[in-house]
Amino acid sequence: MSSPSSLDELIEALRALPSVGPKSAQRMAYHLLQRDQRGAGRLARALAHALEVLRHCERCNTFSETDICQRCANPQRDHSLLCVVEMPADLAMMEQTQLYNGLYYVLMGRLSPLDGIGPRELRLDKLLARASDGAVKEVILATNFTNEGEATAHVIAELLAARGVRVSRLSRGVPVGGELEHTDSGTIAQALVERRAL
Amino acid sequence: MSSPSSLDELIEALRALPSVGPKSAQRMAYHLLQRDQRGAGRLARALAHALEVLRHCERCNTFSETDICQRCANPQRDHSLLCVVEMPADLAMMEQTQLYNGLYYVLMGRLSPLDGIGPRELRLDKLLARASDGAVKEVILATNFTNEGEATAHVIAELLAARGVRVSRLSRGVPVGGELEHTDSGTIAQALVERRAL
Repeated sequence: MSSPSSLDELIEALRALPSVGPKSAQRMAYHLLQRDQRGAGRLARALAHALEVLRHCERCNTFSETDICQRCANPQRDHSLLCVVEMPADLAMMEQTQLYNGLYYVLMGRLSPLDGIGPRELRLDKLLARASDGAVKEVILATNFTNEGEATAHVIAELLAARGVRVSRLSRGVPVGGELEHTDSGTIAQALVERRAL
Repeated sequence: MSSPSSLDELIEALRALPSVGPKSAQRMAYHLLQRDQRGAGRLARALAHALEVLRHCERCNTFSETDICQRCANPQRDHSLLCVVEMPADLAMMEQTQLYNGLYYVLMGRLSPLDGIGPRELRLDKLLARASDGAVKEVILATNFTNEGEATAHVIAELLAARGVRVSRLSRGVPVGGELEHTDSGTIAQALVERRAL
Protein backbone atom coordinates (compact mmCIF):
# COMPACT_ATOMS: atom_id res chain seq x y z
CA MET A 1 0.00 0.00 0.00
CA SER A 2 3.04 2.29 0.14
CA SER A 3 4.65 4.03 -2.83
CA PRO A 4 6.02 2.04 -5.80
CA SER A 5 9.39 0.40 -5.15
CA SER A 6 11.08 2.17 -8.08
CA LEU A 7 10.06 5.51 -6.53
CA ASP A 8 11.28 4.48 -3.07
CA GLU A 9 14.56 3.32 -4.59
CA LEU A 10 15.01 6.62 -6.44
CA ILE A 11 14.35 8.62 -3.25
CA GLU A 12 16.81 6.43 -1.34
CA ALA A 13 19.42 6.71 -4.13
CA LEU A 14 19.13 10.53 -4.19
CA ARG A 15 20.38 10.54 -0.61
CA ALA A 16 23.84 9.73 -1.97
CA LEU A 17 23.99 13.46 -2.79
CA PRO A 18 25.75 15.51 -0.12
CA SER A 19 23.48 17.10 2.51
CA VAL A 20 20.29 15.69 1.00
CA GLY A 21 17.98 14.23 3.65
CA PRO A 22 14.78 12.20 3.24
CA LYS A 23 12.51 15.23 2.69
CA SER A 24 14.76 16.84 0.07
CA ALA A 25 15.23 13.52 -1.69
CA GLN A 26 11.47 13.10 -1.91
CA ARG A 27 11.05 16.63 -3.26
CA MET A 28 13.80 16.04 -5.83
CA ALA A 29 12.25 12.75 -6.97
CA TYR A 30 8.80 14.31 -7.42
CA HIS A 31 10.29 17.26 -9.26
CA LEU A 32 12.30 15.10 -11.66
CA LEU A 33 9.48 12.67 -12.38
CA GLN A 34 6.67 15.20 -12.52
CA ARG A 35 8.18 18.41 -13.85
CA ASP A 36 11.43 17.57 -15.61
CA GLN A 37 11.60 14.09 -17.09
CA ARG A 38 13.93 15.37 -19.78
CA GLY A 39 16.34 16.76 -17.19
CA ALA A 40 16.05 13.51 -15.27
CA GLY A 41 16.98 11.45 -18.31
CA ARG A 42 19.88 13.74 -19.02
CA LEU A 43 21.08 13.42 -15.42
CA ALA A 44 20.90 9.62 -15.51
CA ARG A 45 22.92 9.52 -18.74
CA ALA A 46 25.46 12.16 -17.63
CA LEU A 47 26.05 10.29 -14.39
CA ALA A 48 26.49 6.92 -16.07
CA HIS A 49 28.76 8.45 -18.72
CA ALA A 50 30.92 10.35 -16.22
CA LEU A 51 31.33 7.21 -14.10
CA GLU A 52 32.39 5.34 -17.20
CA VAL A 53 34.89 7.75 -18.74
CA LEU A 54 36.29 9.83 -15.90
CA ARG A 55 39.45 8.76 -14.10
CA HIS A 56 42.22 10.58 -12.29
CA CYS A 57 45.09 12.12 -14.24
CA GLU A 58 48.18 10.06 -13.46
CA ARG A 59 50.20 13.20 -12.91
CA CYS A 60 47.97 15.80 -11.26
CA ASN A 61 45.24 13.53 -9.89
CA THR A 62 42.36 15.71 -11.13
CA PHE A 63 39.40 14.30 -13.05
CA SER A 64 40.37 13.50 -16.61
CA GLU A 65 39.08 11.51 -19.54
CA THR A 66 42.62 10.58 -20.54
CA ASP A 67 45.47 8.95 -18.59
CA ILE A 68 47.30 12.27 -18.53
CA CYS A 69 45.20 15.43 -18.63
CA GLN A 70 45.63 18.16 -21.23
CA ARG A 71 47.19 20.54 -18.74
CA CYS A 72 49.90 18.11 -17.59
CA ALA A 73 50.65 17.17 -21.19
CA ASN A 74 51.09 20.80 -22.24
CA PRO A 75 54.79 21.58 -22.92
CA GLN A 76 53.97 25.34 -22.78
CA ARG A 77 53.50 25.16 -19.03
CA ASP A 78 56.30 25.48 -16.50
CA HIS A 79 57.00 21.94 -15.32
CA SER A 80 59.30 23.15 -12.54
CA LEU A 81 56.38 24.57 -10.50
CA LEU A 82 53.82 22.37 -8.79
CA CYS A 83 50.83 23.92 -7.06
CA VAL A 84 48.97 21.72 -4.55
CA VAL A 85 45.23 22.40 -4.18
CA GLU A 86 42.42 20.57 -2.43
CA MET A 87 39.80 20.30 -5.16
CA PRO A 88 39.37 20.89 -8.91
CA ALA A 89 37.33 24.01 -8.06
CA ASP A 90 40.43 25.45 -6.33
CA LEU A 91 42.51 24.71 -9.40
CA ALA A 92 39.95 26.62 -11.48
CA MET A 93 40.28 29.62 -9.15
CA MET A 94 44.08 29.55 -9.44
CA GLU A 95 43.78 29.45 -13.22
CA GLN A 96 41.45 32.45 -13.14
CA THR A 97 44.28 34.58 -11.75
CA GLN A 98 46.03 34.10 -15.12
CA LEU A 99 49.23 34.54 -13.14
CA TYR A 100 50.29 30.95 -12.78
CA ASN A 101 51.67 28.86 -15.59
CA GLY A 102 53.01 25.90 -13.64
CA LEU A 103 51.39 22.52 -13.06
CA TYR A 104 49.07 21.30 -10.33
CA TYR A 105 48.49 18.46 -7.98
CA VAL A 106 44.90 18.05 -6.82
CA LEU A 107 44.58 16.29 -3.46
CA MET A 108 40.85 15.60 -3.97
CA GLY A 109 40.29 16.38 -0.32
CA ARG A 110 42.12 17.44 2.81
CA LEU A 111 43.43 15.77 5.92
CA SER A 112 40.47 15.35 8.21
CA PRO A 113 41.15 12.94 11.07
CA LEU A 114 37.58 13.26 12.35
CA ASP A 115 36.29 11.93 9.02
CA GLY A 116 38.96 9.22 8.99
CA ILE A 117 40.95 10.90 6.21
CA GLY A 118 44.66 10.63 7.04
CA PRO A 119 47.79 10.83 4.88
CA ARG A 120 47.12 7.31 3.57
CA GLU A 121 43.51 7.97 2.53
CA LEU A 122 44.63 11.18 0.83
CA ARG A 123 47.32 9.21 -1.03
CA LEU A 124 50.05 11.67 -0.07
CA ASP A 125 52.60 9.07 -1.30
CA LYS A 126 51.37 9.80 -4.82
CA LEU A 127 52.02 13.53 -4.32
CA LEU A 128 55.50 12.84 -2.91
CA ALA A 129 56.37 10.66 -5.90
CA ARG A 130 55.03 13.35 -8.25
CA ALA A 131 57.03 16.12 -6.52
CA SER A 132 60.23 14.05 -6.71
CA ASP A 133 60.18 13.55 -10.48
CA GLY A 134 63.31 15.65 -10.92
CA ALA A 135 61.62 18.41 -12.94
CA VAL A 136 59.78 20.02 -10.02
CA LYS A 137 61.85 22.78 -8.40
CA GLU A 138 59.23 24.28 -6.09
CA VAL A 139 55.96 23.11 -4.59
CA ILE A 140 53.43 25.87 -3.83
CA LEU A 141 50.88 24.86 -1.20
CA ALA A 142 47.50 26.37 -2.02
CA THR A 143 45.23 24.37 0.26
CA ASN A 144 42.50 26.38 1.97
CA PHE A 145 43.26 28.58 4.97
CA THR A 146 40.82 26.62 7.11
CA ASN A 147 42.01 24.56 10.06
CA GLU A 148 42.01 21.39 8.00
CA GLY A 149 43.62 23.03 4.99
CA GLU A 150 46.37 24.54 7.16
CA ALA A 151 47.02 21.19 8.83
CA THR A 152 47.20 19.53 5.43
CA ALA A 153 49.70 22.13 4.19
CA HIS A 154 51.76 21.67 7.34
CA VAL A 155 51.99 17.89 6.98
CA ILE A 156 52.83 18.08 3.27
CA ALA A 157 55.47 20.75 3.91
CA GLU A 158 57.21 18.54 6.46
CA LEU A 159 57.16 15.49 4.19
CA LEU A 160 58.53 17.44 1.22
CA ALA A 161 61.18 19.27 3.29
CA ALA A 162 62.45 15.88 4.47
CA ARG A 163 63.02 15.07 0.80
CA GLY A 164 64.80 18.35 0.15
CA VAL A 165 62.03 19.84 -2.02
CA ARG A 166 61.55 23.62 -1.85
CA VAL A 167 58.09 24.42 -0.50
CA SER A 168 56.10 27.66 -0.34
CA ARG A 169 52.61 28.65 0.76
CA LEU A 170 50.19 31.29 -0.52
CA SER A 171 50.46 34.37 1.65
CA ARG A 172 47.80 35.31 4.19
CA GLY A 173 46.64 38.86 4.75
CA VAL A 174 43.99 41.48 4.17
CA PRO A 175 42.04 40.76 0.95
CA VAL A 176 42.60 43.07 -1.99
CA GLY A 177 40.04 45.86 -1.69
CA GLY A 178 39.47 44.91 1.95
CA GLU A 179 38.88 47.58 4.57
CA LEU A 180 40.44 47.02 7.97
CA GLU A 181 37.17 47.97 9.64
CA HIS A 182 35.46 45.02 7.99
CA THR A 183 38.29 42.50 8.20
CA ASP A 184 38.31 39.97 11.04
CA SER A 185 40.98 40.57 13.65
CA GLY A 186 42.60 37.18 13.09
CA THR A 187 43.35 38.12 9.49
CA ILE A 188 44.72 41.53 10.52
CA ALA A 189 46.91 39.89 13.17
CA GLN A 190 48.21 37.49 10.54
CA ALA A 191 48.86 40.36 8.11
CA LEU A 192 50.80 42.14 10.84
CA VAL A 193 52.96 39.12 11.70
CA GLU A 194 53.67 38.45 8.01
CA ARG A 195 54.15 42.12 7.05
CA ARG A 196 56.39 42.73 4.05
CA ALA A 197 59.40 45.02 4.12
CA LEU A 198 59.04 47.81 1.53
CA MET B 1 42.38 23.53 -20.70
CA SER B 2 39.10 23.47 -18.73
CA SER B 3 37.56 20.46 -17.01
CA PRO B 4 36.63 17.33 -18.99
CA SER B 5 33.36 17.61 -20.92
CA SER B 6 31.80 14.61 -19.20
CA LEU B 7 32.35 16.35 -15.85
CA ASP B 8 30.95 19.65 -17.14
CA GLU B 9 27.92 17.81 -18.50
CA LEU B 10 27.33 16.05 -15.17
CA ILE B 11 27.54 19.35 -13.28
CA GLU B 12 25.12 20.94 -15.73
CA ALA B 13 22.75 17.96 -15.57
CA LEU B 14 22.69 18.06 -11.75
CA ARG B 15 21.14 21.52 -11.99
CA ALA B 16 17.88 19.84 -13.04
CA LEU B 17 17.48 19.14 -9.31
CA PRO B 18 15.32 21.73 -7.54
CA SER B 19 17.21 24.60 -5.87
CA VAL B 20 20.63 23.33 -6.95
CA GLY B 21 22.84 26.12 -8.30
CA PRO B 22 26.24 25.91 -10.04
CA LYS B 23 28.26 25.66 -6.80
CA SER B 24 26.08 22.94 -5.28
CA ALA B 25 26.07 21.03 -8.54
CA GLN B 26 29.87 21.12 -8.62
CA ARG B 27 30.08 19.95 -5.01
CA MET B 28 27.62 17.14 -5.74
CA ALA B 29 29.55 16.00 -8.81
CA TYR B 30 32.87 15.90 -6.94
CA HIS B 31 31.27 14.07 -4.06
CA LEU B 32 29.67 11.43 -6.27
CA LEU B 33 32.76 10.86 -8.40
CA GLN B 34 35.32 11.06 -5.63
CA ARG B 35 33.64 9.72 -2.51
CA ASP B 36 30.66 7.67 -3.55
CA GLN B 37 30.94 6.05 -6.96
CA ARG B 38 28.73 3.20 -5.75
CA GLY B 39 26.02 5.63 -4.69
CA ALA B 40 26.41 7.45 -8.01
CA GLY B 41 25.96 4.25 -9.99
CA ARG B 42 22.93 3.38 -7.91
CA LEU B 43 21.46 6.83 -8.52
CA ALA B 44 21.98 6.62 -12.29
CA ARG B 45 20.27 3.23 -12.39
CA ALA B 46 17.42 4.23 -10.04
CA LEU B 47 16.73 7.31 -12.11
CA ALA B 48 16.73 5.46 -15.44
CA HIS B 49 14.58 2.69 -13.97
CA ALA B 50 12.05 5.06 -12.37
CA LEU B 51 11.73 7.00 -15.64
CA GLU B 52 11.11 3.74 -17.44
CA VAL B 53 8.56 2.07 -15.19
CA LEU B 54 6.72 4.86 -13.37
CA ARG B 55 3.54 6.30 -14.76
CA HIS B 56 0.44 7.90 -13.24
CA CYS B 57 -2.34 5.73 -11.84
CA GLU B 58 -5.31 6.12 -14.18
CA ARG B 59 -7.64 6.57 -11.24
CA CYS B 60 -5.79 8.53 -8.53
CA ASN B 61 -3.02 10.09 -10.64
CA THR B 62 -0.24 9.22 -8.18
CA PHE B 63 3.00 7.56 -9.28
CA SER B 64 2.44 3.89 -10.00
CA GLU B 65 4.18 1.01 -11.75
CA THR B 66 0.83 -0.35 -12.92
CA ASP B 67 -2.04 1.25 -14.84
CA ILE B 68 -4.14 1.26 -11.68
CA CYS B 69 -2.30 1.46 -8.37
CA GLN B 70 -2.69 -1.07 -5.57
CA ARG B 71 -4.68 1.34 -3.44
CA CYS B 72 -7.26 2.13 -6.10
CA ALA B 73 -7.58 -1.56 -6.96
CA ASN B 74 -8.20 -2.53 -3.34
CA PRO B 75 -11.88 -3.56 -2.82
CA GLN B 76 -11.42 -3.22 0.98
CA ARG B 77 -11.28 0.58 0.67
CA ASP B 78 -14.34 2.80 0.66
CA HIS B 79 -14.85 3.78 -2.97
CA SER B 80 -17.50 6.36 -2.06
CA LEU B 81 -14.94 8.75 -0.50
CA LEU B 82 -12.38 10.63 -2.58
CA CYS B 83 -9.70 12.70 -0.85
CA VAL B 84 -7.94 15.31 -3.02
CA VAL B 85 -4.31 16.07 -2.05
CA GLU B 86 -1.55 18.04 -3.74
CA MET B 87 1.34 15.57 -3.67
CA PRO B 88 2.07 11.90 -2.89
CA ALA B 89 3.75 13.06 0.34
CA ASP B 90 0.41 14.52 1.46
CA LEU B 91 -1.29 11.24 0.68
CA ALA B 92 1.28 9.50 2.89
CA MET B 93 0.49 11.89 5.75
CA MET B 94 -3.25 11.22 5.38
CA GLU B 95 -2.57 7.48 5.47
CA GLN B 96 -0.53 7.91 8.65
CA THR B 97 -3.64 9.10 10.47
CA GLN B 98 -5.02 5.54 10.00
CA LEU B 99 -8.42 7.20 10.10
CA TYR B 100 -9.21 7.29 6.42
CA ASN B 101 -10.11 4.29 4.35
CA GLY B 102 -11.38 5.99 1.22
CA LEU B 103 -9.56 6.62 -2.04
CA TYR B 104 -7.42 9.54 -3.19
CA TYR B 105 -6.85 11.85 -6.08
CA VAL B 106 -3.36 13.34 -6.25
CA LEU B 107 -3.21 16.66 -8.13
CA MET B 108 0.58 16.51 -8.49
CA GLY B 109 0.72 20.23 -7.83
CA ARG B 110 -1.53 23.16 -7.05
CA LEU B 111 -2.98 26.07 -8.95
CA SER B 112 -0.23 28.64 -9.24
CA PRO B 113 -0.99 31.33 -11.82
CA LEU B 114 2.39 32.98 -11.27
CA ASP B 115 4.11 29.75 -12.35
CA GLY B 116 1.68 29.35 -15.24
CA ILE B 117 -0.15 26.45 -13.61
CA GLY B 118 -3.87 26.90 -14.20
CA PRO B 119 -6.79 24.44 -14.17
CA ARG B 120 -5.70 23.09 -17.55
CA GLU B 121 -2.08 22.44 -16.58
CA LEU B 122 -3.28 20.75 -13.39
CA ARG B 123 -5.61 18.54 -15.46
CA LEU B 124 -8.62 19.31 -13.30
CA ASP B 125 -10.80 17.74 -16.03
CA LYS B 126 -9.28 14.39 -15.05
CA LEU B 127 -10.32 14.94 -11.42
CA LEU B 128 -13.83 15.98 -12.44
CA ALA B 129 -14.21 12.84 -14.55
CA ARG B 130 -12.88 10.73 -11.67
CA ALA B 131 -15.25 12.33 -9.15
CA SER B 132 -18.24 11.77 -11.45
CA ASP B 133 -17.77 7.99 -11.79
CA GLY B 134 -21.02 7.32 -9.90
CA ALA B 135 -19.36 5.57 -6.95
CA VAL B 136 -17.98 8.73 -5.33
CA LYS B 137 -20.41 10.20 -2.80
CA GLU B 138 -18.16 12.81 -1.20
CA VAL B 139 -14.97 14.61 -2.18
CA ILE B 140 -12.76 15.71 0.74
CA LEU B 141 -10.42 18.56 -0.18
CA ALA B 142 -7.11 18.14 1.62
CA THR B 143 -4.91 20.57 -0.28
CA ASN B 144 -2.53 22.61 1.87
CA PHE B 145 -3.77 25.59 3.87
CA THR B 146 -1.42 27.90 2.02
CA ASN B 147 -2.73 30.64 -0.26
CA GLU B 148 -2.24 28.47 -3.32
CA GLY B 149 -3.67 25.37 -1.67
CA GLU B 150 -6.74 27.31 -0.52
CA ALA B 151 -7.27 28.79 -3.96
CA THR B 152 -6.97 25.32 -5.48
CA ALA B 153 -9.55 23.94 -3.04
CA HIS B 154 -11.89 26.84 -3.78
CA VAL B 155 -11.74 26.32 -7.56
CA ILE B 156 -12.23 22.56 -7.27
CA ALA B 157 -15.13 23.02 -4.85
CA GLU B 158 -16.93 25.30 -7.30
CA LEU B 159 -16.38 22.96 -10.22
CA LEU B 160 -17.63 19.94 -8.26
CA ALA B 161 -20.60 21.78 -6.74
CA ALA B 162 -21.70 22.72 -10.26
CA ARG B 163 -21.80 18.97 -10.96
CA GLY B 164 -23.80 18.26 -7.81
CA VAL B 165 -20.98 16.43 -6.02
CA ARG B 166 -20.80 16.77 -2.22
CA VAL B 167 -17.60 18.49 -1.22
CA SER B 168 -15.92 18.98 2.16
CA ARG B 169 -12.65 20.45 3.38
CA LEU B 170 -10.33 19.52 6.25
CA SER B 171 -11.06 21.78 9.21
CA ARG B 172 -8.77 24.59 10.24
CA GLY B 173 -7.96 25.41 13.84
CA VAL B 174 -5.50 25.20 16.69
CA PRO B 175 -3.20 22.15 16.28
CA VAL B 176 -3.65 19.25 18.67
CA GLY B 177 -1.41 19.92 21.68
CA GLY B 178 -1.11 23.54 20.58
CA GLU B 179 -1.00 26.32 23.17
CA LEU B 180 -2.82 29.52 22.30
CA GLU B 181 0.18 31.55 23.44
CA HIS B 182 2.30 29.96 20.73
CA THR B 183 -0.31 29.80 17.97
CA ASP B 184 -0.39 32.53 15.34
CA SER B 185 -3.33 34.89 15.60
CA GLY B 186 -4.59 34.04 12.10
CA THR B 187 -5.06 30.42 13.14
CA ILE B 188 -6.80 31.45 16.37
CA ALA B 189 -9.08 33.81 14.45
CA GLN B 190 -9.94 30.97 12.08
CA ALA B 191 -10.59 28.60 14.99
CA LEU B 192 -12.94 31.18 16.49
CA VAL B 193 -14.89 31.72 13.26
CA GLU B 194 -15.16 27.98 12.68
CA ARG B 195 -15.89 27.06 16.33
CA ARG B 196 -17.86 23.89 16.89
CA ALA B 197 -21.04 23.74 18.91
CA LEU B 198 -20.67 21.28 21.82
